[in-house]
Amino acid sequence: MADLLILHGPNLNLLGTREPGTYGRATLDDINRALADDAAKAGYGLRVFQSNHEGELVDLIQAHGPQVQGALINPAALTHTSVALRDAFLAVGVPVVEVHLSNIHRREPFRHHSYLADVAIGQVMGFGAASYRLGLAGLIDHLAQAAG
Amino acid sequence: MADLLILHGPNLNLLGTREPGTYGRATLDDINRALADDAAKAGYGLRVFQSNHEGELVDLIQAHGPQVQGALINPAALTHTSVALRDAFLAVGVPVVEVHLSNIHRREPFRHHSYLADVAIGQVMGFGAASYRLGLAGLIDHLAQAAG
Amino acid sequence: MADLLILHGPNLNLLGTREPGTYGRATLDDINRALADDAAKAGYGLRVFQSNHEGELVDLIQAHGPQVQGALINPAALTHTSVALRDAFLAVGVPVVEVHLSNIHRREPFRHHSYLADVAIGQVMGFGAASYRLGLAGLIDHLAQAAG
Amino acid sequence: MADLLILHGPNLNLLGTREPGTYGRATLDDINRALADDAAKAGYGLRVFQSNHEGELVDLIQAHGPQVQGALINPAALTHTSVALRDAFLAVGVPVVEVHLSNIHRREPFRHHSYLADVAIGQVMGFGAASYRLGLAGLIDHLAQAAG
Amino acid sequence: MADLLILHGPNLNLLGTREPGTYGRATLDDINRALADDAAKAGYGLRVFQSNHEGELVDLIQAHGPQVQGALINPAALTHTSVALRDAFLAVGVPVVEVHLSNIHRREPFRHHSYLADVAIGQVMGFGAASYRLGLAGLIDHLAQAAG
Amino acid sequence: MADLLILHGPNLNLLGTREPGTYGRATLDDINRALADDAAKAGYGLRVFQSNHEGELVDLIQAHGPQVQGALINPAALTHTSVALRDAFLAVGVPVVEVHLSNIHRREPFRHHSYLADVAIGQVMGFGAASYRLGLAGLIDHLAQAAG
Amino acid sequence: MADLLILHGPNLNLLGTREPGTYGRATLDDINRALADDAAKAGYGLRVFQSNHEGELVDLIQAHGPQVQGALINPAALTHTSVALRDAFLAVGVPVVEVHLSNIHRREPFRHHSYLADVAIGQVMGFGAASYRLGLAGLIDHLAQAAG
Amino acid sequence: MADLLILHGPNLNLLGTREPGTYGRATLDDINRALADDAAKAGYGLRVFQSNHEGELVDLIQAHGPQVQGALINPAALTHTSVALRDAFLAVGVPVVEVHLSNIHRREPFRHHSYLADVAIGQVMGFGAASYRLGLAGLIDHLAQAAG
Amino acid sequence: MADLLILHGPNLNLLGTREPGTYGRATLDDINRALADDAAKAGYGLRVFQSNHEGELVDLIQAHGPQVQGALINPAALTHTSVALRDAFLAVGVPVVEVHLSNIHRREPFRHHSYLADVAIGQVMGFGAASYRLGLAGLIDHLAQAAG
Amino acid sequence: MADLLILHGPNLNLLGTREPGTYGRATLDDINRALADDAAKAGYGLRVFQSNHEGELVDLIQAHGPQVQGALINPAALTHTSVALRDAFLAVGVPVVEVHLSNIHRREPFRHHSYLADVAIGQVMGFGAASYRLGLAGLIDHLAQAAG
Amino acid sequence: MADLLILHGPNLNLLGTREPGTYGRATLDDINRALADDAAKAGYGLRVFQSNHEGELVDLIQAHGPQVQGALINPAALTHTSVALRDAFLAVGVPVVEVHLSNIHRREPFRHHSYLADVAIGQVMGFGAASYRLGLAGLIDHLAQAAG
Amino acid sequence: MADLLILHGPNLNLLGTREPGTYGRATLDDINRALADDAAKAGYGLRVFQSNHEGELVDLIQAHGPQVQGALINPAALTHTSVALRDAFLAVGVPVVEVHLSNIHRREPFRHHSYLADVAIGQVMGFGAASYRLGLAGLIDHLAQAAG
Repeated sequence: MADLLILHGPNLNLLGTREPGTYGRATLDDINRALADDAAKAGYGLRVFQSNHEGELVDLIQAHGPQVQGALINPAALTHTSVALRDAFLAVGVPVVEVHLSNIHRREPFRHHSYLADVAIGQVMGFGAASYRLGLAGLIDHLAQAAG
Repeated sequence: MADLLILHGPNLNLLGTREPGTYGRATLDDINRALADDAAKAGYGLRVFQSNHEGELVDLIQAHGPQVQGALINPAALTHTSVALRDAFLAVGVPVVEVHLSNIHRREPFRHHSYLADVAIGQVMGFGAASYRLGLAGLIDHLAQAAG
Repeated sequence: MADLLILHGPNLNLLGTREPGTYGRATLDDINRALADDAAKAGYGLRVFQSNHEGELVDLIQAHGPQVQGALINPAALTHTSVALRDAFLAVGVPVVEVHLSNIHRREPFRHHSYLADVAIGQVMGFGAASYRLGLAGLIDHLAQAAG
Repeated sequence: MADLLILHGPNLNLLGTREPGTYGRATLDDINRALADDAAKAGYGLRVFQSNHEGELVDLIQAHGPQVQGALINPAALTHTSVALRDAFLAVGVPVVEVHLSNIHRREPFRHHSYLADVAIGQVMGFGAASYRLGLAGLIDHLAQAAG
Repeated sequence: MADLLILHGPNLNLLGTREPGTYGRATLDDINRALADDAAKAGYGLRVFQSNHEGELVDLIQAHGPQVQGALINPAALTHTSVALRDAFLAVGVPVVEVHLSNIHRREPFRHHSYLADVAIGQVMGFGAASYRLGLAGLIDHLAQAAG
Repeated sequence: MADLLILHGPNLNLLGTREPGTYGRATLDDINRALADDAAKAGYGLRVFQSNHEGELVDLIQAHGPQVQGALINPAALTHTSVALRDAFLAVGVPVVEVHLSNIHRREPFRHHSYLADVAIGQVMGFGAASYRLGLAGLIDHLAQAAG
Repeated sequence: MADLLILHGPNLNLLGTREPGTYGRATLDDINRALADDAAKAGYGLRVFQSNHEGELVDLIQAHGPQVQGALINPAALTHTSVALRDAFLAVGVPVVEVHLSNIHRREPFRHHSYLADVAIGQVMGFGAASYRLGLAGLIDHLAQAAG
Repeated sequence: MADLLILHGPNLNLLGTREPGTYGRATLDDINRALADDAAKAGYGLRVFQSNHEGELVDLIQAHGPQVQGALINPAALTHTSVALRDAFLAVGVPVVEVHLSNIHRREPFRHHSYLADVAIGQVMGFGAASYRLGLAGLIDHLAQAAG
Repeated sequence: MADLLILHGPNLNLLGTREPGTYGRATLDDINRALADDAAKAGYGLRVFQSNHEGELVDLIQAHGPQVQGALINPAALTHTSVALRDAFLAVGVPVVEVHLSNIHRREPFRHHSYLADVAIGQVMGFGAASYRLGLAGLIDHLAQAAG
Repeated sequence: MADLLILHGPNLNLLGTREPGTYGRATLDDINRALADDAAKAGYGLRVFQSNHEGELVDLIQAHGPQVQGALINPAALTHTSVALRDAFLAVGVPVVEVHLSNIHRREPFRHHSYLADVAIGQVMGFGAASYRLGLAGLIDHLAQAAG
Repeated sequence: MADLLILHGPNLNLLGTREPGTYGRATLDDINRALADDAAKAGYGLRVFQSNHEGELVDLIQAHGPQVQGALINPAALTHTSVALRDAFLAVGVPVVEVHLSNIHRREPFRHHSYLADVAIGQVMGFGAASYRLGLAGLIDHLAQAAG
Repeated sequence: MADLLILHGPNLNLLGTREPGTYGRATLDDINRALADDAAKAGYGLRVFQSNHEGELVDLIQAHGPQVQGALINPAALTHTSVALRDAFLAVGVPVVEVHLSNIHRREPFRHHSYLADVAIGQVMGFGAASYRLGLAGLIDHLAQAAG
């Protein structure tokens, strides 16, 4: 079965406990379960990881990127500071979708810029936990188009 | 039946004929039919409009905004230049989702800024015609959450 | 009787219904009536228009500008985006006063700049509906000085 | 009788002698007399001061601010350089209106920014001596609304 | 007979009456007649329009663009504010030449930038009414080269 | 007994009455008494002044600077606008510590820059009245190190 | 006994060996011992960590943050580059004080900005090893006030 | 016979051999011949020079400027870096037209600015070798208008 | 006898004691005596003042400006922060020369800008105490030319 | 035998597999072997490491820096984002040379800035795998000069 | 006899003929004669050159710089564009004074920056031909001080 | 025998005499001899030139560029100011390597930008005279790769 890579950046392990007013009450496990269900319906398995370490995320992209059909990432804080993640995706060449729980354009100005945005297929943001599911649907649609 | 407002900005009437390498071959009618199907499944009717005129889009938001549950807009060129659309949504207070066919972060720098982004619930971009369907799904999910 | 031109920009037709906490409860009709009273006392008639269309406002300035003694405009969203309004006033040469209901310096940074400010006689802002009446008084005073 | 505070910033004592082409021929005394008449009609007394010293203006705001209903200030050169005036108004909490004789947007770029603008109720500029009278009318209107 | 599209942006209908010191005494009709003569000599007919409305200009580019060999536009105020005109030309793919009566580099800094410049074949500016005729000659030369 | 100079900038005389939510309820006298106690324990006397006048603060630095071992200043609004205070400290050469009641990085962007910061030994901010006591402790520690 | 979290960022393990002219001769152990003594006097225990890895510091904030009363951090190089540390503190919600050995305003311009400053209670910088002790005192004072 | 000055800046001597995809196959001699023919028809002789040296171009403007009716220059690389050319034209006071083979707005950002643009009558760019002929026509038209 | 006004800004009273490596050993009295000698030779008397207070300098310009032939000022720190001094000179209309002891372009970037420079006749800087004498000579030469 | 430290930043472990059009076909092992040969000829041993983790690279610089004569680093993505690497080299004080496979000035603007450049001896970039060998030669030459 | 080097930059050979309203009627010969007289009185000979070529000016600084006591230059247009002149003075190490006829702060913004200012002893500007004589006096005074 | 072009920019003829602390004691002749030896070993002859004139360097690139296999240039001051050199290399199409004696990132900010960098193969800087030899080795390696 073809797999997809799901990556969660720094502090997303706290989801559900962290500022529920902003991010909602869904935990990362809740989100991962919903993603796995959606993926299974489309015939994909998932490889899911969370890390607070930029270097680990780079390692994961290098290790799993060549073996999966596509990737979905919420880079969280690293969105705005990591060229290494950008380079890992450029090097591995796997199609990637960028998602954010909150609408980054409503937050501090430094959050408006993403080092990943222009190497990703697309972005989904602002829908809380649903951003992930919409992003996954977009990725699967993209793979189907490309395969088509 | 509750309705949603779908707005297409300048030049989107040319969709399917315009730079198919960039925007794909789907016409605006194709997109609108797919949206209507998705909306119907969720119990919503659609009110769909396209205009090349900023003023007409403002008129439409004023006329239909108070009567619909939510709005989905691809502001196209007006994304980067129209404060009037922003103000119309602020005035009417209807929840709105912003979508783009292409990934605006891969294009000219002036396209990276959106006057609508921080008054929208969220953004979906880069998935071609699928951006609309993902955005509609996000809007419907948002309305369900808010109603929940 | 000499006339003055009163122009209201995009979304001002919603006045009184729109964010009353910010803009107050006066409707555009209320404001227009008060202006007409003030103008009449000074011996002026008014020609009053509102439009959500930049092009219509340009048309109106061209059509009425040469026939009136002066103009009062709240360009609303177009304050920050329209060079065409600026050029229309430059072309017609009629003295114009710029007014705003709210204090634009308390709002988003892009609202701090006005394309009209340096071609207007002056600005009045922040007094709600009273901004219009003060701006009209300033315009009438200016005309009296110039006539003097 | 309730009082209002009128403050004139640096070099305004020269009014009437200074660049009459730009500022008109009214002296500061002329302006103060007109303001006193207008205020009296609305039931207010005035406390009027001019100073070339930022520190004195701060002292005056501290001394009189808590005893008056509102303040009207033409900060002149200090508009663009004084955070201390801003802080004095913030500390004392008295409603303040900012006025300018000339249209500061027609002058050097450094004059386009005001440290006071976003802590003031509103601004009136460009009407020469009439800017003061319009600003006072706006202040009185604001106090009436707030009292209302 | 092959046609060319001539578009005049906002306020150009006032030509000849507006600031003759800056723009000269030629009216838009004068210019259009001269252009028609020049075009006829080169075997082209003209379709000529002026509008104060961005949306109408977009409509005209969409309607006529696919039927003409090339376009000549003086976008006037919209030069500096309209992405929609740019996108219309990009979508229709017709070769376009940008002209200005005055030298925009001698005017306000915001007039130094053109949203159309890098999608046009070239620019002609500063020659008053002759800018149009030179631009038309350049367009016709370009079409001859491309045909050659 | 060796002395230290304590300077309080504009509007700090209002402390305790001014925005207690932001600055706390301690008055300037409370703060000065606490500082005097702390200084006495370390064997220092204090010379304490507050002024709303930049010029007076410069005079005080000139008059007392050469006679004291060190200085502690909360420049308040002058932090962001006064080169004269900076130059006075540079001229007199007395070690100086800069303190702020509030965290200036949480406030308006123009408050993030200090003309004094890089000529001071160090900064303490954000601890309310305690910022002064911590700054004094830092100054005394610095003098002890330098003496050591 | 209530605990506080002390975090030292990259390269601070070299303290005492590194540029003693700039940072002094105190080692990190010296500093930690002094902090432990101060904390003990106020009834707090310390949990002290140093890491050169942004991700480890995020892990430590997540692990210890919810169990301690407050945190003191010298983010060193990460001050200027890490949004992840900022987000960890935002997520965990523990009060945090930022300290620096040197005065960052005397160093390279990129060191003048801190991603942590506006989410911290306050900053202490420039006093060498004493910056830590003053910061700890400020934190303890803040906790006492908040508890008071 | 009245003369015009034609100046070609650095590297234009390579024309026809240099990047023909961008600049076309016309050599500088071809261009000069065409210009001479056009000028002769209008009753002008030409003085034509090319130099890779800024100083030589300044010398030429000084030597020939006072003796000719007007000048046409393609400053090439010096467009973006030479104030001395600008000053030479200002000093000599001869009317000058600026031309470019390519559309400088399609090239590197540093090529978008011209030190000559606002002292020239006008600009023509983007038409390859035809830019010169259009520029010459514009210059001759300008001289005729001025003489008229 | 015609008089000239000599103004010394903040901290210049410390001259000769302050950073002699940078500013030399001449005191303000030394400089004033030398200036008086030079002025006397040219038939001028001097009115000399130093102040650390922006407001006092404004008062002095207002009081003496209308009675003197010209002014020489070293605004020191106020060079970079005072619009009020600029306005005082604009209001009084007396010709003024700006001098600096040190070369302000070798110092901190914020010292490179002068609010007075473009309203002064000219600037002299970098020659230590001699800057004053050269500036006075320039002023006297200017007055002679103007009288000539 | 004296040693040198060779550090490869994030994603360089993929070399030879990654975008061979841009980076060539040499693997990191190929490069390391060539470097070891060159170093051996000059009498140096090498300590070679690659890591995707900023923190590990800092640890390595701290551990090996004091024991080697010099260092050669290709910081890859961390060039543009890591102050911690800069600080590690500053702390350890070992001479370091910065190399890049590609010419970073031909890539995205954010790659034009290096946080390491001004603390390195020098930079070599754009020669593919040869950049490393040239950089090593430069380092060895530098050490010979310093020893000489 | 010791010599001084006098350099005049591009277009200054036209002095006296060029915009006399701005630059006065003195020719370069007039200025040179006056400078020679002044220099002779102080015991210096002059070596005087004018060139429109940056390279020639660099050659002259290299050839004469090591043989003269000091230099006076009006770099004219090269003030704002030439790093080579700056480097020539840095290389030769001769003390240099920068002069300008006009006040460059009253002219176009690009003229406000000088590449020479911070390597010169000082600047004199705005006094017309007298700027040269004042600059020469400043240079001679500087040499006397340095010799003293 | 195939040749390479070696170009030295302004002021490099002074090498060895100029700031030996910064640039070392090697003269340009020393460097040229070393380069000739290195080139000869690789089977290349050299054509070596130095000029202080931008125009001469352009002439040299045009004359020799088409006849050599590659070029090595230290543009010195022209690095930061010359578009003409960039254009000459673009026009001639010869591969070029850019070298600098010093590390330009340790110097004034305006030296951090190179107009040549992105049209060169690569850059070598900071190794003193060795920068040239490393750059030559890089150029020869590049030619071998391209030939391979």
